[in-house]
Order: sequence, then C-alpha cells, then structure tokens
Amino acid sequence: MGTLPLSNRNNQMQESSIRKLAPYADAAKAAGVAVYHLNIGQPDIKTPDAMVKAYTEAPDIIAYGPSPGVESYRRKLVDYYRTIGVHVGADDIFVTTGGSEALIFAMMAVLSPGDELIIAEPYYTNYNGFAVMAGASIVPVTATIDDGFRLPSIEAFEAVITERSRAILITSPGNPTGAIFTRPQLEQLAAFAKRHNLFVLSDEVYRDFFYGEEKPASILSIPGLEEHAIMIDSVSKRFSACGARIGALVTKNPDIYSLVMKFGQARLCPPAVEQIAAERALDTPPEYLRDVVAEYKLRRDLAVEALSKIDGVVVKKPEGAFYLIAQLPVEDAEAFAMWLLRDFRLNGATTMVAPAAGFYASPGLGKNQIRIAYVLNREALANAIHIIDEGLKEYRRLKG
Amino acid sequence: MGTLPLSNRNNQMQESSIRKLAPYADAAKAAGVAVYHLNIGQPDIKTPDAMVKAYTEAPDIIAYGPSPGVESYRRKLVDYYRTIGVHVGADDIFVTTGGSEALIFAMMAVLSPGDELIIAEPYYTNYNGFAVMAGASIVPVTATIDDGFRLPSIEAFEAVITERSRAILITSPGNPTGAIFTRPQLEQLAAFAKRHNLFVLSDEVYRDFFYGEEKPASILSIPGLEEHAIMIDSVSKRFSACGARIGALVTKNPDIYSLVMKFGQARLCPPAVEQIAAERALDTPPEYLRDVVAEYKLRRDLAVEALSKIDGVVVKKPEGAFYLIAQLPVEDAEAFAMWLLRDFRLNGATTMVAPAAGFYASPGLGKNQIRIAYVLNREALANAIHIIDEGLKEYRRLKG
Repeated sequence: MGTLPLSNRNNQMQESSIRKLAPYADAAKAAGVAVYHLNIGQPDIKTPDAMVKAYTEAPDIIAYGPSPGVESYRRKLVDYYRTIGVHVGADDIFVTTGGSEALIFAMMAVLSPGDELIIAEPYYTNYNGFAVMAGASIVPVTATIDDGFRLPSIEAFEAVITERSRAILITSPGNPTGAIFTRPQLEQLAAFAKRHNLFVLSDEVYRDFFYGEEKPASILSIPGLEEHAIMIDSVSKRFSACGARIGALVTKNPDIYSLVMKFGQARLCPPAVEQIAAERALDTPPEYLRDVVAEYKLRRDLAVEALSKIDGVVVKKPEGAFYLIAQLPVEDAEAFAMWLLRDFRLNGATTMVAPAAGFYASPGLGKNQIRIAYVLNREALANAIHIIDEGLKEYRRLKG
Repeated sequence: MGTLPLSNRNNQMQESSIRKLAPYADAAKAAGVAVYHLNIGQPDIKTPDAMVKAYTEAPDIIAYGPSPGVESYRRKLVDYYRTIGVHVGADDIFVTTGGSEALIFAMMAVLSPGDELIIAEPYYTNYNGFAVMAGASIVPVTATIDDGFRLPSIEAFEAVITERSRAILITSPGNPTGAIFTRPQLEQLAAFAKRHNLFVLSDEVYRDFFYGEEKPASILSIPGLEEHAIMIDSVSKRFSACGARIGALVTKNPDIYSLVMKFGQARLCPPAVEQIAAERALDTPPEYLRDVVAEYKLRRDLAVEALSKIDGVVVKKPEGAFYLIAQLPVEDAEAFAMWLLRDFRLNGATTMVAPAAGFYASPGLGKNQIRIAYVLNREALANAIHIIDEGLKEYRRLKG
C-alpha cells in the first residue's frame, strides 16, 4: 500500500493540552471520582426560555435560508447593536455558524497564505487552528500577569511589524485572561492599525460579561476604523447557547462583506432552526443577563479571594468574561493538572483545570499558569478551588 | 485612507452565474410575475414528521456537544450505513455542519496550498469555493452530454496527472448531471487512485435518488480503498432538510480522521438541536423515501419527455439525483436565461434556470447548456418547461 501523506496542515494543527488531559478525567470518572470542571467555557446557566421554546417553531420543510442569515434576524441584530453603540445596517451583518465560522471567514478574507496575524498572548487556543486553515502565521505580543494582562504597549506591537503583517486580532473581554481593553487603548490600537494598514479583527463574544462600571467598547464604535474593523459575535455565551452555533461577522467594509458573502454562499447557509431560536432569544428581558452577570461577579469574587489565599498563588482580579489565569507555585502546571486528575482525591473528588501554556504562542511562557473557567455554582467552585489548595500542598510535599 | 488589499482569495472566489441572475428574478417577482424556480436544489418535499417534531426536544441548556457529533447519532448512522453496504464504526464518522463542512474538512485534510484536485466536469460549483479556501486548484476531466455524462475514461484521468495531483473528487448520483457511476467504473477509478497515491473524496449526498434497478455504490464499499477513501454525506436531500446543516465525513483512514478531529475541535461542535432532529430522522419509515423517489421519478420522466420534444434541445435521461443538463439551440444559455427573466412572460409567468457554463472549469464548455432541478410538482414543472419551449421559439425569432 502506497504511503499517502496528508496536507501540510497535519504538521501545523496542534493537540491542545486540554485534549491530552481528557483521558485522565475520563479515567477518574470511570473510577467513580467526581471531577469539578474548571477547564471549559460551558456555562451551567439556563438558556433563556424564549430561545428554547422557539425550537417548536420548526417549519414543515427545513429549507435552505439566505447565505448571510435570515433577514428578520439580521434586522433585530441591528437594533441590538444600536444598544451597544454600534450603528450598522442589516447588510453589514453576516450570520455565521458560531463565532468559529465568523473567525474562519474573517481570517480567510484578510490573510493570504504566508501572511501574519498579530495577537496579544495568552489567547484563545482555537485561533491557532483557524490560522492554519487560512495558511497564515500568528505573531504574538505578550501580555503579563503582573499587568493584569492589560493590552501590551503600542511599542510592543510596533516591534513585531513585518512586511507580511496584515491584521491584528483582539479579544475583549478576553479568554483566557478576563481582561478588558479600555476605549483609550482601543483608540491607540486603531491608530496603530491605520498607520500600518492592518485589519482589526475583534472577537467580542464575552461583551456582556463585565463586572466594573464601564461597558467593554466594540471595535465598531471606534470612529474612523470602518475600513479596517471586523467584529466577531456569537449567541453562545450571551444566551448560554453554545450548542446553537449561531454567530455573526459584522463589518462596514463592503469589500470584506462581498468576499465573506462568497465564502458563505459556498457553504449555503447557517443552521435554519437554531437561527429562529437565536432571533427569539433577542426578546429575552434584560433581567436575564443582569442576573447571570451578577451571579458571575459573585463567582469571580469567590474564586479570586479563594485563590489569593493559597500560598504561592498569584492572581489578579479580572474585569470580564468568566475566566482567570492563576500562577501556581509549581514548575509545570500541566504536570500538576495531570497529577490532580490521576493521583489526587479529596473526599472522592478532584478538579480539572486548563494548563495555560497552550494559550501562549511563545515557547516556555505560561508554564506555571492555569486557566480557570468559573462556570460552576459557588458551592462547587469553592470545593473545586479547595481541592487545588490541598492538592498544591500535597504536590509540593511530594515533589520538592 | 490607506488601501487595504484583501487576501488573494478575493481574486479566486468567483461569482456564480445564478447569483448574477438573481436580481432579475427579484425584479420580475417585484413586478408581479410568477417565477418557476428550476434553478435551485431546494426540494418542495416535506421534511419527515419525526424530524420536525424532534426540535421540541431542545434541552434547557443548549450546550456544546462533542466535536465529532453526538455519540448516539453516530451509532445510529453506523446502522444506517450498514444498510447500504458500508461497514464502519461510530469512530469513523465525523458529524459536520452540512455536507459543505465535510467537503471543506476533507479538502483541508488532503490538499496543501498549490495541490491539485481532479474532478469530472460539469460539477457542483461550490467545490470551487472550498478549493479556494484550501488553497488548492481544481483540474477538470470533461464528461459529455453525448455520453450521458458518464464517468470519463481512465485514460482521460491519466492524462491530467501531475506531481501536484493529490486527490479525485467524485459525485454520484451527480449534481448537475444526474449521472450515476457504476460499481465497475468506481473500481477502475479506485485502481487508478491507488496507482497514483490519490485520495478519493466521494460526495454521496444524492445516494437515495436513483431511478433504475441498481443502487449507487458507496466509495466505502469498494474493497482495498480504506486508506484512500473519504465519504461525504448529508441529511439535506435525504430528508429534505437542507436548512438543518447536518452532514458527515466518513473515513476508515485514522490519520485523516485525526486531522479532521483537530479541525472539528477548533470549531467546537456541529449544531446541537439540529443534530437531535437528524438523529430522529433516521427513524423515518422507508415508505417516506420510497414515495419521494417515486415522485421524483415521475418528475424526471415528465421533464425529459417535455424537453425532448422541444425543437433543437438535446437531453439524456439521467439516472439519479434531481437534476438534468439540457443543451439548448442557442449560443449563450446564460443570455437566454437572463432574457427569460427580464423579457419573457407567458400568462404572467416565467422560468428561472441555471446556465451550465458555471459547472465547468474548462473555459467555453457548457455555454449552450442549462441545468434543470426538477424540484417542483409535476403541474408546475410542466408549465415551467412549456415556458422554456415558447421562450426558445420567441428568442430564436428575435435573435436569429
């Protein structure tokens, strides 16, 4: 049998460290151990009733819809975006299969094979896979835990510019950091992007999750950036509907929109019935999100307080999303995370966390950090962090 | 404002001729003209009850599902595939967002930028867009209307082999041709693929629509092709559920599956509730498809008979899918199709067809051909073809 080499993407797609840990979590569960999952961004919050009920409106023929999404849904999104200071028309909005497809289309639209995409690290791991699909390279600019993962200086961005630099990708509120970039920071970044003719991709799927006074600013509310800006959105987190796979790409640049339309026509349309549900979700009363965000704020405070008390742990209070990065008093957080799953039990339970090294592109960074998704109720969250505390004591006794 | 060039995909993505015609169809409708749509593959057939009802099972939290699809669904697909002579396990099946995503993942998996994908033309236009996304080129091998669009000879495939040839993509039953490749033809093609170390991507989404005695063979039922074969499937046509966007990629090659898993993990999961519906659709009694196929057979016979009677039209009876290619006695079928929409009315109605040139990669081919999707009820279909008949008479009087 001849050897059949796969595409060069086979060498470029990485296995995430979470995936490496998964078998150990499965083994623990199979052995009857309760595993607290602080490793994933799947909220335990109920999807709004209006959305769940909307699925009963499935039509007799589940037919193709328009490639850019159903018009009535896009019109309602226009109204929604106006409430966050973003003034766009229905024809600036392209409904996608999750924020994931919006990211793929955005990268495919602005990055040729060999081009460079600048991202502040640590960043959402799946950006790597989308860049591989587009044939582009990610160039990191490092944010640090000591700075609370605030946006790195413009000088740091200037330092990585090459002739292949084509775009910046930002995430605010951030995953995995929970950091929010301020409006002045975004304005500086916008000036930088314009100076170097860079597109700005802005992943805003955590927009609703902020715990201070100031709302996170959308890239589309920064004046003068109309030609450069592409906003990525999703209903996944806003309505705790990750499985619906309904997102959006929004841009006021008609050339980008036209090209995205061609990609979108090739794949025909986003899911039809999930889209009906996403449209109805916009009728959800504001109390829903207000309550959800209040709950997350309590969880954040609990998590930060409990982690701060652990000997040797460094953590800053993040302002948004539902993640935080904690630095542990261990050399290799992945080894510790694996040990927790394989060898440590407290009252028949253990905790799964995400090693943070995978969120960095620069080799060696984040090795002693973990990401925690505070998506469990407070009692479970407290137990899960208590396990980390006791686990660290035992681990440090054993290892050193 | 600086100029911001988009990626090189912007020059490679083509506008399909259907898209060029769409504004004329819209204008006709706005003027009160009834437009018979023979141009698209959206069936008028009802989605099975079991599938539509399943949407009411939407859970309280629309959460992420597994990246390769829900396991219970994949297990049921194992049983279904067994009924068509395909023996695979649940871990050989990767559930995708429509056949479209399965095609994108398959191309991304086996084609590096610059590689060549061999396809018999005319072929489904959207393959072009997926190849652009993967950075690959399509190399056509021409099938002819005189041969009823049967699979071209192996010699013709041999003639296009280069050092960049990596894969063949076949569609049987075919869109836009309706042609079915026989098992002996597939076996010859398999031997050819093995000789040249090519992957074989087989788009089998029209599998159920055949009007002769012999069922179309799946590529996965050809012995010895396990390492080479990737099957693309979808519920869109089988259950008249195009909008559900549930497809599948099936392969027994574990290296391909692993790489597809990485692409799939990056985009998280296929739509959750649509997937529940697709699973329930498999409980649909066989009478459903038997009746649907019987209806399509009557439509095919009606369409072929009516078209054959038109002076100067060439058409062969296709054996499957719900499309046919007809050659018209005009020089430029696209100009004729546009004229029908813009200038020709019969009892306040006109007909929209798809010019066939867009289904060919070789310049100039198919210029006098159209594709007809016989997805309307027989009365509408007869009226629509009568309009083509009368339109051709008028058009030839005017132009010739």
